[in-house]
Amino acid sequence: MAQINDHYLKLEAGYLFPEIGRRVRAFQEAHPDAAVIRLGIGDVTLPLVPAIVSALHEAVDDMATADGFKGYGPDRGYPFLVDAILEHDFRARGVELAADEVFVSDGSKQDSGNIQEIFALASRVLVTDPVYPVYVDTNVMAGRTGRADGAGRYEGIHYLAATEANGFVPDPPEGGGVDLVYLCSPNNPTGSVMTREQLGRWVAWAREHDAVILFDAAYDAFISDPELPRSIYEISGAEECAIEMRSFSKRAGFTGMRCAYTIVPKAATGTSASGERVSLHQLWSRRQATKFNEVPYIVQRAAAAIYSPEGRKQTAEQIAHYMENARILREGLSAAGFTVFAGLHAPYIWLRTPEGLSSWQFFDALLEKTHVVGTPGSGFGPSGEGYFRISAFNSRENAEEAVSRIQGAFGAES
Amino acid sequence: MAQINDHYLKLEAGYLFPEIGRRVRAFQEAHPDAAVIRLGIGDVTLPLVPAIVSALHEAVDDMATADGFKGYGPDRGYPFLVDAILEHDFRARGVELAADEVFVSDGSKQDSGNIQEIFALASRVLVTDPVYPVYVDTNVMAGRTGRADGAGRYEGIHYLAATEANGFVPDPPEGGGVDLVYLCSPNNPTGSVMTREQLGRWVAWAREHDAVILFDAAYDAFISDPELPRSIYEISGAEECAIEMRSFSKRAGFTGMRCAYTIVPKAATGTSASGERVSLHQLWSRRQATKFNEVPYIVQRAAAAIYSPEGRKQTAEQIAHYMENARILREGLSAAGFTVFAGLHAPYIWLRTPEGLSSWQFFDALLEKTHVVGTPGSGFGPSGEGYFRISAFNSRENAEEAVSRIQGAFGAES
Repeated sequence: MAQINDHYLKLEAGYLFPEIGRRVRAFQEAHPDAAVIRLGIGDVTLPLVPAIVSALHEAVDDMATADGFKGYGPDRGYPFLVDAILEHDFRARGVELAADEVFVSDGSKQDSGNIQEIFALASRVLVTDPVYPVYVDTNVMAGRTGRADGAGRYEGIHYLAATEANGFVPDPPEGGGVDLVYLCSPNNPTGSVMTREQLGRWVAWAREHDAVILFDAAYDAFISDPELPRSIYEISGAEECAIEMRSFSKRAGFTGMRCAYTIVPKAATGTSASGERVSLHQLWSRRQATKFNEVPYIVQRAAAAIYSPEGRKQTAEQIAHYMENARILREGLSAAGFTVFAGLHAPYIWLRTPEGLSSWQFFDALLEKTHVVGTPGSGFGPSGEGYFRISAFNSRENAEEAVSRIQGAFGAES
Repeated sequence: MAQINDHYLKLEAGYLFPEIGRRVRAFQEAHPDAAVIRLGIGDVTLPLVPAIVSALHEAVDDMATADGFKGYGPDRGYPFLVDAILEHDFRARGVELAADEVFVSDGSKQDSGNIQEIFALASRVLVTDPVYPVYVDTNVMAGRTGRADGAGRYEGIHYLAATEANGFVPDPPEGGGVDLVYLCSPNNPTGSVMTREQLGRWVAWAREHDAVILFDAAYDAFISDPELPRSIYEISGAEECAIEMRSFSKRAGFTGMRCAYTIVPKAATGTSASGERVSLHQLWSRRQATKFNEVPYIVQRAAAAIYSPEGRKQTAEQIAHYMENARILREGLSAAGFTVFAGLHAPYIWLRTPEGLSSWQFFDALLEKTHVVGTPGSGFGPSGEGYFRISAFNSRENAEEAVSRIQGAFGAES
């Protein structure tokens, strides 16, 4: 008799974004003429830049010829992409990595969801709260938790609250008692970013307690201050205790293209049941060789074009566009009386919901009154209750129109 | 203290194809002038057909404009692709499926590796032997097995031998005692194909014993006899007990493009620990929403072009090319004295190794004497020992040259 994985039944409701999608579709069916502005799911809106488009056309032409055609790609990605990653994302910031420490993949969501597979089922997991739901849900599905309590906290997961008091960047807990820590900086959803000192305290803590940090830097391209760390490997010693995930999704408009990469340094280890140190690189290599094929050749060519002189200039302009939207939203909502956070080093605005409204109540009110879609903070965890995420991924017109509508509808009450 | 997933340490040696890659690289370093012909890993060699190339260029142009740009795609795939799949792969053969029963993915390897996640850890797994290694290795990694014995059989996996006596298509076992069954037809590696009657016996058995069949039809496009089933859903009742995986990799030269799909019918269920029937469709939907993003828009456009009139004609010509290679290899090796199987409905030749040689010994001998790379049967499981897989994916010249070299080197001894 085929038995299902019962851990799936512990999952709360739907995954956050499909649930938002359902509510928006229902609203649109009821109000077919409403001009909905989507600042909910963090999806890019600008088309691919010319340097990437040219590289794609060339790569497609390669695939049309006997000499240029590419079948299965090399493990971990093509050298033309891996070398560009090493040079521009790491060496330029003083970090030396080996080429085979880079694993090109189809998304940081996938990698941050799959990485838990190489660790023991008994691993004690810590997340900051609010949290990108994939970190938690994939551990629930794997069987590392009990059921969720009334506030949505799963038994067996350690939640570290990111609050206004700690600037949404909690410090490591006292003592150990934790094996795996998910950190995200710039943070999704709060938009907070870790300083070198804050990240250094986490690395020191992980080394002291023999924990592994799973560092999600999918939004690193939005960091505007060059002094802030973009990679955890800018902190000495992190190569022994950290795995890092980076993405082209938001950096270059790749949400519909699917390319990212994960760094697993050879110096990072975990412990086997018999007490031996085992290379995490060896485990992740085996995992990917068994359960993954490489990213399409044409997509890897497109990703490599991000690093060309034109590609860097053009994608920087895209990022500047979104960050100007972030400024408009941040200042506009602040002027409307909202208490607003972030939006300086991330494409997200994090705001306190107007008095008395839960996150989902505000979601519904915002949709009803202004036809603007955002993301309820509580969808990211219990400490997100009473907060709300607004994405800067949109046209300038829509960002300005959203501010105008929100000021009109909420300016008086907030 | 971060503990690793100890189940990974049970895995035997490397994953098969990386191991072949290592041996071939070592040979090439020692013999830099040798003209190696690769008939090992089943990788296509012909470039993408013109209908697909045109569709790709158009899709790239879409991504370059504000109106045509696509970010995150719809769950389970774009309707333009899903509808083509339903129409041509199923309705044309009398099978009606709902659009949301199709899950477009980046590979059948991925799907056949990930599908076990939605079933209980205690599931009793049956594979036919020899077997595509991903089915077994992913269950080892998940913790459903003990260690492998001397022959490579993992404790806890049920192996059903595919032998010359049963035509490499074993019938279901007597009785039940099994929850999940992986079937592959046309079979990788043996090239055997299941008749309607054989597949019908499996479906009846699965329904009787409440087991779930994971049916891998990644090579269905190579079936030349229209009477043979291409989909398990051509067997009545399969929609209640089977999940099916199909791929564009070999069908349209997509190994470097990455597109496939999996069917999870809404009627298929498993049992929860509390004894309730749970929809497998609901579980797989949740799994994919949490751990996967859709296949790139441009790749889905390319896949849809396979179904256009030109695309069908052009990809059929590619398949005919490979099947003519299969004929040349089958007849040529047979003439050289080898006992040869399959190659009629699959792009693989399965042969008995010459007397006295193990599969890996023959691999090394073939590489040394003829510079031809094949795949050792034992790499697919203990019942593959003494057999060898030769792939038909290559140019006509290489297929003919391989036959000529093998006849020269082995013709006398076989």
